[in-house]
Amino acid sequence: MQPLSDQAVQDQLAQLDGWVLTRGQLTKEFSFKDFDEAMSFVNKVAKLAQLANHHPDIRISYNRVNLQLSTHSVGGITAKDFELARALVR
Amino acid sequence: MQPLSDQAVQDQLAQLDGWVLTRGQLTKEFSFKDFDEAMSFVNKVAKLAQLANHHPDIRISYNRVNLQLSTHSVGGITAKDFELARALVR
Repeated sequence: MQPLSDQAVQDQLAQLDGWVLTRGQLTKEFSFKDFDEAMSFVNKVAKLAQLANHHPDIRISYNRVNLQLSTHSVGGITAKDFELARALVR
Repeated sequence: MQPLSDQAVQDQLAQLDGWVLTRGQLTKEFSFKDFDEAMSFVNKVAKLAQLANHHPDIRISYNRVNLQLSTHSVGGITAKDFELARALVR
């Protein structure tokens, strides 16, 4: 797995809803009605992450969930990150 | 609910295992065998948070879980934060 070029990252980002590049990571913040709904989403994310064997960093702040994706092993963003980002919908 | 004095925070911190004061929040990092174990712990934390009606910020980074506690409504650390911290054991 190779890191994508900056241009490839920008091109693929443009096709995703709400994901941005923050400090070298694909990042999206999701808001929910309350903590219970946020946790339901986090558990859905966890299942998808296990299936993909690729794990975003997850931050939960009451009703907000922030996801950050990158491929640590290659020090960049790969096709795998975009594949998972596309699956991580609420 | 009143914020605790700095001295009271330090006194109570000294009685807790592994919790430190970071940027005005009670913070502890827990490490697990893998992501599944980390998520099990997060779900336990979520249940205790709902029972206490008090919600730590939670960060999950693969097998590591970072918890941060403060009482936003009073802009400080309260007895409620310490009560929950004592319950948040692995």
